[in-house]
This record gives sequence, C-alpha cells and structure tokens, in this order.
Amino acid sequence: MSDKKQIAVIGSGGVGAYYGSQLQRQGHDVHYLFNSDYDHVKTHGLSIISPHGNYSFDQVNAYNSVHDMPKCDIVLLALKTTSNHLLEELLPPVTKGNGFVFALQNGIGIEEQVAQVVGPNRVIGGLCFICSVKRGPGVIEHQDYGWMSIGDFNPDNKPSGITPRIKMVADLFQGTPIPIDLMEDLTQARWQKLIFNIPFNGLSVVLSADTKQMTSHPETRDLAWQLMLEVGIAAKAAVDRTITKEFMQDILDKTTVMQPFYPSMKQDHDAKRPLEVEAIHGQVVRYAQAANAKIPHIQTLYQQLKFIDYTTQSTL
Amino acid sequence: MSDKKQIAVIGSGGVGAYYGSQLQRQGHDVHYLFNSDYDHVKTHGLSIISPHGNYSFDQVNAYNSVHDMPKCDIVLLALKTTSNHLLEELLPPVTKGNGFVFALQNGIGIEEQVAQVVGPNRVIGGLCFICSVKRGPGVIEHQDYGWMSIGDFNPDNKPSGITPRIKMVADLFQGTPIPIDLMEDLTQARWQKLIFNIPFNGLSVVLSADTKQMTSHPETRDLAWQLMLEVGIAAKAAVDRTITKEFMQDILDKTTVMQPFYPSMKQDHDAKRPLEVEAIHGQVVRYAQAANAKIPHIQTLYQQLKFIDYTTQSTL
Repeated sequence: MSDKKQIAVIGSGGVGAYYGSQLQRQGHDVHYLFNSDYDHVKTHGLSIISPHGNYSFDQVNAYNSVHDMPKCDIVLLALKTTSNHLLEELLPPVTKGNGFVFALQNGIGIEEQVAQVVGPNRVIGGLCFICSVKRGPGVIEHQDYGWMSIGDFNPDNKPSGITPRIKMVADLFQGTPIPIDLMEDLTQARWQKLIFNIPFNGLSVVLSADTKQMTSHPETRDLAWQLMLEVGIAAKAAVDRTITKEFMQDILDKTTVMQPFYPSMKQDHDAKRPLEVEAIHGQVVRYAQAANAKIPHIQTLYQQLKFIDYTTQSTL
Repeated sequence: MSDKKQIAVIGSGGVGAYYGSQLQRQGHDVHYLFNSDYDHVKTHGLSIISPHGNYSFDQVNAYNSVHDMPKCDIVLLALKTTSNHLLEELLPPVTKGNGFVFALQNGIGIEEQVAQVVGPNRVIGGLCFICSVKRGPGVIEHQDYGWMSIGDFNPDNKPSGITPRIKMVADLFQGTPIPIDLMEDLTQARWQKLIFNIPFNGLSVVLSADTKQMTSHPETRDLAWQLMLEVGIAAKAAVDRTITKEFMQDILDKTTVMQPFYPSMKQDHDAKRPLEVEAIHGQVVRYAQAANAKIPHIQTLYQQLKFIDYTTQSTL
C-alpha cells in the first residue's frame, strides 16, 4: 500500500488521457478530471486507439470537479496552457502535502507558474513529443510518437540533476510503450524545444504553411533561422543557457526532411482553439525584455499571433 | 503645334487610363498602351465611371506594342512595379530624345530604375492617392480621391526644387478635377509614403486585416509603430532624410479614423495578383542593408510577404 501512488490527471484530452490510461493499464491508481466529456466517460468509460494496440476501460475514476478527487501523490498537469489561469483553483485540492505536480505543458516558465501555486519544491516538469487527439467523447486517438523527457525543477535556475522523484515517475511508466528519458537540466531542455516551437508553430499560423513549405522556401527558411538565433540570444541573457548553432542547424535539418506536418499551434488555429502563444512566444518576449535582450523578429511574430488569436476568438 | 505635347500612357489600368483620359478630355494628344484589353478598346473605345461625372471616348489611340506608338514628350508610367522587368523593352521606343518619363508607381528607387533605362535626366516622379480600378474591358471605375504629387528626380540625391518640367506637367492637368501639388523633394516624399505602406500594406496581407482592425488592436498598433520607426531609421541611414515622429503619429492617427479599408497590396492579394513587395518592402530592406541599418521588423514582414506572394503565384 505504501508503494501504491495515487495519480491525478488534470486535463484529460489527447495527451493527458493517453498517458493516464497507459499508467492505469499498468495497474496504477489514476484519477481523471474531465470537462465536457465527464458524463459520457462516467457512463461508458474510456477507449484508446493506438498503433501499439487499442484498449478500453469500462470504468475509470472520472471527475468533473477537483473537490471530488482524492489528494494525489503525482498530479499530471496536461491542460493546454491557455487554461493556466485555472491552476490556482485546480491544483491545491488534488495535490497531497508531500505530493507534487508533473507539468507536461508547452512553453517556458511553466514550472515557475505551478510553483507559485503549490510551492517551489512540489513541481517537476516534462516535455513530450506525441500526436494524440480526442476523437469523440471518451475516445482518444493516439496517432504517433509518444516519448517523454522528465526533469526536476530547481527554483534557483541551476540544473537539478537526476533526482529520485523523476526516477520514480519514470518507473511508473515501466511496461508501457512510452520511451522515457531523464533530464539533468529541465530549463535547458525547455528552451531548446523553443528552437522548433518559436519559428514553426508561429509561422505555420501566420503563413498557413506546413513544415515542408516553411523549410523549403528560402525566405521563410532564413526567417526561421533568424528566429532560432533570437531564441539563443534570449536563453543566454535570461537563464544563462547556451544553445549551439549546431543544435539549431540540426533542428532545421530534421524539420526539413520530416514528413510535412502542421505544428500544434496551427492545428489549434484551424480548430479555432485558443493559441498557446503566451506560454511560447509571449514568455520569450517577457524573459528577453527583463534581461534587456533584443529579439525583434520574435516580437513581430508574437504581436501578429496575438492579433490572429484575438480576431479568431472574438468572432466565435 | 510646338506646345502640343504627345503623351504616352504605359500601363492603362485603373490609374493610368484614368489620368490619361482626363488629359485627353482637356484636348491633349494621349496614346495608350493596352495589354489584354487592346482589341476591345480599339473597337469600342474607353469609358470612365467617376463621381466627378462619367465620360467616354468612342475612339482612343490604343496600341498593343510600343513599336507602333509615336515617340512622346511625356511617358506616364503607371504599370504595377511587378512588371518593371519590362521597362527596358517598353520605355526607349516611346520616349522622345528630349522627352521624359513621369513615373507614377509605388515604392522607392523607382526613378533610379527608370533612369537606368532612359538616363538620369529623363525622369520625374509622382505619388498619387486614388481609388480607381478596371471594371471590365475598356471600363475604368474611378471610385474616390485622385490627387497627385509631382517632383523632379535628382540623381545626386539632393532635393530638386520646383523645376519647369514638373510645372509643365502640372499645367497639363489644368481643367481636370485632379488636385496636383508640386514637391521640392521627391525622395523625402517617397520615403514618407512608406510610413503608411510598409506597415499597413504588409500587415493587411499577412493578417488579412483592414486598417481599422490593425490600428485598433494594441499589438498590431504597436507593431505598426515599430515598423514606422524602422522606416525612419532606414531613411536616415540610406538617403539622409529625416521623418519625424510627429509625421508618423499623424499617419497613425489619420489611419485610425479613416473609413476602414483594405490597402492596395491586400486588394492585389485577394485578386491573386502579384504583390508589389519588392518595390516597397524589398527596396527598404536593400537600402537599409547597403547602409548597415538594422530593420528586423521590416525584414520579418518582407520575408513573410515573399513567402505568401510565392505561394499564391505558384498555385495559380
């Protein structure tokens, strides 16, 4: 019983419900917060379609209020960051005194936001690379990929190294088809992920373009490169992390040869969902401003995205 | 006979055919180069719809080749700049030895391009503010406005002052409803026009937005301001002209209170016509680069417009 961890999933969409259900499949005690799908899942359970094999649960621990949920050891936070104004309301009721939040969200400054709600020593973070969407009420379609990188959060901005609790979370996924790696330096990893996200998420929305179009046209390829360089400038100035040009070139090269796809922000835009522009572009602009670093290309893209997001949401 | 000037109109669309026909109405000897509408105009003449009164000519001097046209004293160049690769072919056959080209095109570096073809002392330039479009073959709809500013070209980059030949051209328009003013410094005027054209033409295409949307959202209003400031930086560095912040603020304020409209580049984009991005944004980028001035906001917008223009034209 002492080893039996209780796990809450806050944000049971394509990402949260997929990862949660994989843990449940291993026999873990998983509790899901649902929103609009609550009634359906409560009655009919949860189904997962996946290239690793389909599976379903007739019954899951589904809730539509955090106040009905047990306090958990691990709170898997998989909300879109556009709902992060709800963190104060959602996290405290489900997080045990010695429990922690595992923040699996896009962008930077995520753990800092969670820390403001639950305290600096009660948060770890993760990055995931996964294509998984909700197909209908209670039906998750995991399409491809799935790996996850996990790192601990260090409020004094130093690398945390590999801590017991991130190893413990990785162990929970043993037996699942989800590759996990552990990160010494979560901050470095979050900023490095921006090397893709800043140019390609942003430009895909503004230019209605997929990765192949953006990397093959010389003007957008160069613009992506300028945006990457500015991520590097901001990372150095704001959090004293170095992102090498070799790393940037590698991301550009890999994006060039991948199957063409629409990044997540473009998918959100096409579905008229709010854009995660504050967690990604907005945060970089604010970090850079606070550190007196100039990133005018990112600033331009940020302001364009804000306009597009506002215009889309205000005409719904 | 010595006073009877022959006038060629190169580019007989909404702008060229309207101004040419107003001159013809005053009894001037006007010769029009048409493209696809040649056969229709040759047979049926030219009709102008205008708030100043409709009028038509059963017969006009219409041509479909410059080699059939007389050499003229004044060559009104009203092509879209996207056809400026044709200047070498079009201008020499229609320009008298002591005649000159009156370049009524958007952007900067226009007179310099014309000068390379006909010589530095055979070009003057103008700016116009007019809403006038081709409604069908041989039918021009002049919708609103129409004023024109005319200045002489000085290849050594100094203000030309008010020269006899720009006064002469202004005199040709006497009796028409077209307000004319004469400019001491064409370079200053062309750069000042960019204070509107760089932000609002560019952003209207990238963001699918009209002037009211762009000026009322705080992010795009600020972005427009940053773009204006960079036009000022480029003008100072490249041609030693000062554009004051008061001028910029005035353009921003006027644009804010005008009836909302789509700038010409957005209209071109919606009609899937090539964008005048090289004459406007591209030229500023090149002038700034040559002068070692940094204009990253304009650079970003330029590269986005190049991508959009390429994508639109390559899928026609």
